[in-house]
Amino acid sequence: MAASQSEQRMMHINLFLMGCGHHRAAWRHPQSAVEQLGDIRYYERLAQTAERGKLDAVFFADSNSAGNVSDGSWWYLEPLTAIAAMSRATENIGFISTVSSTFYTPFHAARLVASLDHISGGRIGWNVVTSMFDVEARNHGYEAMPGHAERYRRADEFVQAVLGLWDSWADDALMFDRQGHYADPAKVRPINHKGEFFRVDGPLNVPRPVQGHPVLFQAGASEQGRELAARCAEAIYAVAYDLPAAQSYYRDIKRRVKAAGRDVTVPIMPGLVTYVAPTEAEALAKQRELDELLPSEASLRQLAMFIDQDCSGWDLDAPVPPLPPLEEFSGPQGRYSTILRIIETEQPSLRQLLGRLAAGGGHCSIVGTPGQVADKMEHWFNNDGADGFNLMPPSLPSGIEDFVEQVVPELQRRGVFRTEYQGHTLRSHLGLARPE
Amino acid sequence: MAASQSEQRMMHINLFLMGCGHHRAAWRHPQSAVEQLGDIRYYERLAQTAERGKLDAVFFADSNSAGNVSDGSWWYLEPLTAIAAMSRATENIGFISTVSSTFYTPFHAARLVASLDHISGGRIGWNVVTSMFDVEARNHGYEAMPGHAERYRRADEFVQAVLGLWDSWADDALMFDRQGHYADPAKVRPINHKGEFFRVDGPLNVPRPVQGHPVLFQAGASEQGRELAARCAEAIYAVAYDLPAAQSYYRDIKRRVKAAGRDVTVPIMPGLVTYVAPTEAEALAKQRELDELLPSEASLRQLAMFIDQDCSGWDLDAPVPPLPPLEEFSGPQGRYSTILRIIETEQPSLRQLLGRLAAGGGHCSIVGTPGQVADKMEHWFNNDGADGFNLMPPSLPSGIEDFVEQVVPELQRRGVFRTEYQGHTLRSHLGLARPE
Repeated sequence: MAASQSEQRMMHINLFLMGCGHHRAAWRHPQSAVEQLGDIRYYERLAQTAERGKLDAVFFADSNSAGNVSDGSWWYLEPLTAIAAMSRATENIGFISTVSSTFYTPFHAARLVASLDHISGGRIGWNVVTSMFDVEARNHGYEAMPGHAERYRRADEFVQAVLGLWDSWADDALMFDRQGHYADPAKVRPINHKGEFFRVDGPLNVPRPVQGHPVLFQAGASEQGRELAARCAEAIYAVAYDLPAAQSYYRDIKRRVKAAGRDVTVPIMPGLVTYVAPTEAEALAKQRELDELLPSEASLRQLAMFIDQDCSGWDLDAPVPPLPPLEEFSGPQGRYSTILRIIETEQPSLRQLLGRLAAGGGHCSIVGTPGQVADKMEHWFNNDGADGFNLMPPSLPSGIEDFVEQVVPELQRRGVFRTEYQGHTLRSHLGLARPE
Repeated sequence: MAASQSEQRMMHINLFLMGCGHHRAAWRHPQSAVEQLGDIRYYERLAQTAERGKLDAVFFADSNSAGNVSDGSWWYLEPLTAIAAMSRATENIGFISTVSSTFYTPFHAARLVASLDHISGGRIGWNVVTSMFDVEARNHGYEAMPGHAERYRRADEFVQAVLGLWDSWADDALMFDRQGHYADPAKVRPINHKGEFFRVDGPLNVPRPVQGHPVLFQAGASEQGRELAARCAEAIYAVAYDLPAAQSYYRDIKRRVKAAGRDVTVPIMPGLVTYVAPTEAEALAKQRELDELLPSEASLRQLAMFIDQDCSGWDLDAPVPPLPPLEEFSGPQGRYSTILRIIETEQPSLRQLLGRLAAGGGHCSIVGTPGQVADKMEHWFNNDGADGFNLMPPSLPSGIEDFVEQVVPELQRRGVFRTEYQGHTLRSHLGLARPE
């Protein structure tokens, strides 16, 4: 099972930026940055910290609803506008924005992301999601979310239209010929897309992005999600609670990519929650400190959302009641299967389950010294578990500062993480070729 | 007719930023910035120049199609993303982005603009347009543009939904109570909008904008456009070829605003093309230099778009053939009526008409010394023609540098333009109250 470590293969690491951190109670900490969530300088400083650590990119999730506002801030600044500013406060690090294929039109999405790729000098990625919740759908004209299969058919068509629009200007279309043409009309072509969901004539009104295509990220645990990833994803944000789960997903996706006839590396980057400190005891204390800030009511509401049933009456100190099997669950599959796995392998009390879910929602967690964190990351990296990680610091900015100051030097010493950027585009950080 | 000039009343001046300038041939000039149109630093420097001149705002038009790419660059960076970056390179000047009510959903528009208002610290305006062209419609799923009346019904409902979303968080909703609520759920309310075109439950996932509402700009010469402006516009970008046209529009809008029961100042800012130099001869030479760069074919294609008929076979040196009267024209009314007015008052040759239209499409033009330019601006300002101007420099960056260095000091000397910003929000520059 152990793969030999090539000298060239390097980990990819993103900072998954979320409010005051991924632990739901992080904002309650006396030193949290909760008052700064509307201040772009807070986001710029986080990006600068991640860049100091030579990370590949800053990753944004997104939602189209406000969520439960009493629990904490899930959204404040909108990612695309925030990224435009953050890219100007940095020089090398990439930025990945989630954009929903269910709520945008391909023309807007292609244009906004292409414009960001120009503004940032080629440092943008697009995480395509189909969105999930009826509360989001009802902000965009639907009564409820379209079904899972329809959303994925739409996403597939959406991606094809966006890629077509990015290619609607040839790389050498711009002539700047002061006596003749600004651009060569023969190299700026309509795409005339007509499909089940979209009509988009094109061409785009933004010349071809610096990277050709901004990097296409995807995450999806369902059959349709994996198939979409196999066909078009260039990098993947995965959810894996432990190494066996990570390996199963990793090998399945690599197999599917190959089966789809694609001869490409598709870096797979599971989410990773780390509590890191010079000693294990200090790291455990950091975790406990956040867990103790957690109000159980809000956590129960979050769990209810994940499992799509009311659990407000459940006993916190009793075992979690049995849940329907995965195949009977119609919501997002990845997180639900993780919850089933935690229950199956650990038989936690409801309170213990909430603790697990409060930071990172069932992603892998590591609590320990820089050496312990690096050990586990390397173990996954060398054993078909991951090509890198999407860091989900429980609290921000401290969580990313800890990681950059303590874990990054350890990974660099071990030769598995870059000590300098080798290029200036996200595509170059991820080792991806520029599409023709 | 002459109104007395109160000491308090000050002109409002925006820079209407467009590629290499508003003259269609500006990009052909040997010193044009055409190679920099994908470089955000070019836009940031323009905003800094405008801020040095204490202008109210930088204004962006927008389009959802590429246009004729051989003619020049009409779009490159997308305005919302560019503004996010530009706002971080400046401290006081406002930014107004056009966002189409026909192609966006209210939730996206409200969210993107609200996010920019937070990022910029309250310096954002939204110019609501209904869009015009079938080539744009076909990039967003339509076969053709919806009719004029339908577009304006949609715009009306769109604006109401956006305002509702901006108000869905009370100003004091955020509590940051670490022992309790992040935000007061009673002060973050759904809007439950259901209308002819939209269903938007809300609340928005961005807290209330810094300005309460980003400033609502509007431009519209048609009956429906004027009615929409009267009901909801806080400032207006107008098209007026000469003072009588400006006065007629100005008085009509002020009357309609009053009739709509609104006790508010709605600054009216006609577009203004200036060629300015220390002597009139030098200013005329600047104009001639650009006009001589104009290829007649491209100009004829532009004219064809404005009047919605093919004119490629027309004789350049013969009088312009008769055009259908305004009431038979279904496209955008403002520009068409200006063209009719130029033809009626000046009986130009086709070539002369093209010259008029090449810079600013029939807006008012002034060619002269700083004193002459200031004279005409003041004359309009003091005679019910304008509360300010939306500057359309024929070439950029030189056109705005000339204006800031030569005309602004002259206006300041005359006491009709600010010498320092009195506040830090666009709303404060425009003298508009913050909505409750």
